[in-house]
Amino acid sequence: MSARSMVTLIERKKRGEAQTLDELEWICRGFLAGEIPDYQVAAWLMAVRWRGMTEVETFALTHALVASGESFEWSEDRPVVDKHSTGGVGDKTSIALVPLLAAAGVTFVKMSGRGLGHTGGTIDKLESIPGFQVDLEPARLREQVAAIGCALVGQSPEMVPADGALYALRDVTATIDSLPLIASSVMSKKLAGGARAIVLDVKHGSGAFMADEEEAEALARVMVAIGVGAGRRVRAVLSPMSEPLGRAVGHALEVREAIDVLRGSGPPDLVELTLDLGAHLMVLSRCTPSLEDARIALHRLLASGVGADKLEQLISAQGGDARIVAEPDRLPTAPVVRVVESPESGWSEGFDARAVAGVLLDLGGGRRTKADRIDHRVGIRILVRRGERVEAGQPVAEVHATGSEAWGGASAAILEALGISSEPLEIVPAARRVIGE
Amino acid sequence: MSARSMVTLIERKKRGEAQTLDELEWICRGFLAGEIPDYQVAAWLMAVRWRGMTEVETFALTHALVASGESFEWSEDRPVVDKHSTGGVGDKTSIALVPLLAAAGVTFVKMSGRGLGHTGGTIDKLESIPGFQVDLEPARLREQVAAIGCALVGQSPEMVPADGALYALRDVTATIDSLPLIASSVMSKKLAGGARAIVLDVKHGSGAFMADEEEAEALARVMVAIGVGAGRRVRAVLSPMSEPLGRAVGHALEVREAIDVLRGSGPPDLVELTLDLGAHLMVLSRCTPSLEDARIALHRLLASGVGADKLEQLISAQGGDARIVAEPDRLPTAPVVRVVESPESGWSEGFDARAVAGVLLDLGGGRRTKADRIDHRVGIRILVRRGERVEAGQPVAEVHATGSEAWGGASAAILEALGISSEPLEIVPAARRVIGE
Repeated sequence: MSARSMVTLIERKKRGEAQTLDELEWICRGFLAGEIPDYQVAAWLMAVRWRGMTEVETFALTHALVASGESFEWSEDRPVVDKHSTGGVGDKTSIALVPLLAAAGVTFVKMSGRGLGHTGGTIDKLESIPGFQVDLEPARLREQVAAIGCALVGQSPEMVPADGALYALRDVTATIDSLPLIASSVMSKKLAGGARAIVLDVKHGSGAFMADEEEAEALARVMVAIGVGAGRRVRAVLSPMSEPLGRAVGHALEVREAIDVLRGSGPPDLVELTLDLGAHLMVLSRCTPSLEDARIALHRLLASGVGADKLEQLISAQGGDARIVAEPDRLPTAPVVRVVESPESGWSEGFDARAVAGVLLDLGGGRRTKADRIDHRVGIRILVRRGERVEAGQPVAEVHATGSEAWGGASAAILEALGISSEPLEIVPAARRVIGE
Repeated sequence: MSARSMVTLIERKKRGEAQTLDELEWICRGFLAGEIPDYQVAAWLMAVRWRGMTEVETFALTHALVASGESFEWSEDRPVVDKHSTGGVGDKTSIALVPLLAAAGVTFVKMSGRGLGHTGGTIDKLESIPGFQVDLEPARLREQVAAIGCALVGQSPEMVPADGALYALRDVTATIDSLPLIASSVMSKKLAGGARAIVLDVKHGSGAFMADEEEAEALARVMVAIGVGAGRRVRAVLSPMSEPLGRAVGHALEVREAIDVLRGSGPPDLVELTLDLGAHLMVLSRCTPSLEDARIALHRLLASGVGADKLEQLISAQGGDARIVAEPDRLPTAPVVRVVESPESGWSEGFDARAVAGVLLDLGGGRRTKADRIDHRVGIRILVRRGERVEAGQPVAEVHATGSEAWGGASAAILEALGISSEPLEIVPAARRVIGE
């Protein structure tokens, strides 16, 4: 096929026709090899964004992405589990979940990406731990998994290179928000990672990548179908997100909060999500027969502190200062830490998650472009949750900033992110829904 | 604005929002200057293909294209007219129309593009005349127009360069078939050419660029609106095309047929279209008060042969061998010219225009890619029209080929392009519709 053939494929997608596995593999290979120019791939991406893809086509694209690089295979004796979150503000679940499950006997290899825009990346958060290495050679990764049963690492560049190339082009051509492109991108990395059981945490609401619940459900269904088609056991948990998850937003602050979870003192919403996703993983990996059994087992582990011990092992294995687990003050701290007080009385409507993410970006704790460096020290701790009574002058948040000026800007912005109602709110606990087996 | 801003503009177009004149000028300027990468423009083009453009937006884009280069201005004393055809198989109307109108006292400067794919370009056809120069410096063009009142030239590269750059990218990204992109591309060249009165020949049907009449009408309406918005007098004539126009398809053969028209012996459909478009131009340029007066005047000119004299002047002025008008055998001829006979009896359903264009391409008389060279000698002469009785063994076409083998392939293909009905056809004369003032 030639550049002319790529015009034909764009033309067909533009008319809404489905593409074959052969064609999608040809596109991925040709793009990576520089044989198909980026402007043709850009036009094709927009045509995909426009016309969508069938479930089969999305599966085929995922397969083509996986085929562009190297995949991990793990021993059948010790099946590996994995999880993925579509991204949410303050989501540090993986940092607690991976050692917790490993402590429960479930081998957990979590490969993560970096954060961009309003969602933070697990890998970036872990780098706030002094010395922690996120890039492990495959051989060293295997050794570590054999030794301690878990790892929290960055994606290796040899894995799904076509996904990396396509993502970079999508980022500059306004084609990120395509369901089949998101689904195939996520699942290609999960499949190449070699896990046999995968739990997908698909968030929706103002703090999530997808605001709309129906869209989130559609994404979840496609991702589950792709995983099942590839012979994996997959389940998606749909969870709403309007407030940030937990109380901490910011890299070192979030690591600290994940440690709190493993010590049995985490914020209730984060503990609940950790137990929920963990229970699904235990059932999917056939460790426990029911979700109830799994939750009981995980609760015991949190109470006993063995999850925290496992996190220490993990940090040590990856070259980090494991003392931060027992002494979180060893994590980097911001020079200016001061509370922000509510100017009025009423009931909290909660902090808008996306606005809080914006404050973190302004504080220097996020990336606007891939080249940006992150300040791990800065962040926000939320002191009132949605529905709680607030008095004028009461501290509602704690802002961790690099200086007084940055603190001033952030404290004004964080107050704007908080809604105060003059009447009590009726709080309906948000239901999580499960999609998949 | 930066590359990030271009993402925002793509994003907005993707959501179906209209873009402003400032934004469209910024895109054209930035793309031409190499500051906006082609992959971003490619994604934007596909988003435009998807979401379309409002009439105002299409006008703004046309304005931005015109502003990217240099425009002609002609004296108010001698207003210049122009015409454009959306392209049809065997369409050599301009070659007869330009000298005919000039003979009638209407200054006519026709700037044309080259042919690509299934439609031939007027410029390419003219180059079958030995010595004929299609590229004139602006100063020489002005002199010629002052001296003889007409010119048939190629578009100068200084005119609407952004259109050329966008067109090249559209060609390789399957974004040619976008109504606002077609309308702005055509009208930018007409506006930059400086004509005060413009007639647009918008064809539809199997032999035209747009198969669908509704689409053709929508395109005509947008183009008229753009021209009127720019202060020009514009009229569009919608005409159906299933058979090729006239009897000749192929470069030298078409020049010969245009000469036939000017000598009063052209095929009826081509003469009719020439008179029709010519009459509209005479009315639009205020030369005659009514279409009837205009047709009578043009008829007289055809009978008197002054249009043919004007074509001789035009060819001489542009360095060509003007003797071809009196002695068309001086045009290049193909080595093998033989008729093709019908294998069966019945009534002709006509030659499918697109299929005939395909035969011309196979004979070497067209371009598949821009770099292809054209053989001006080859072509097809159609000997039976739709509705006519055909006997088995009767010559139905004449194929002009470079050799016997090429002739063989083409004669088989040309027979396939001809439908033969076992019953007489009811022929309804196709009505032309006029859009605009």
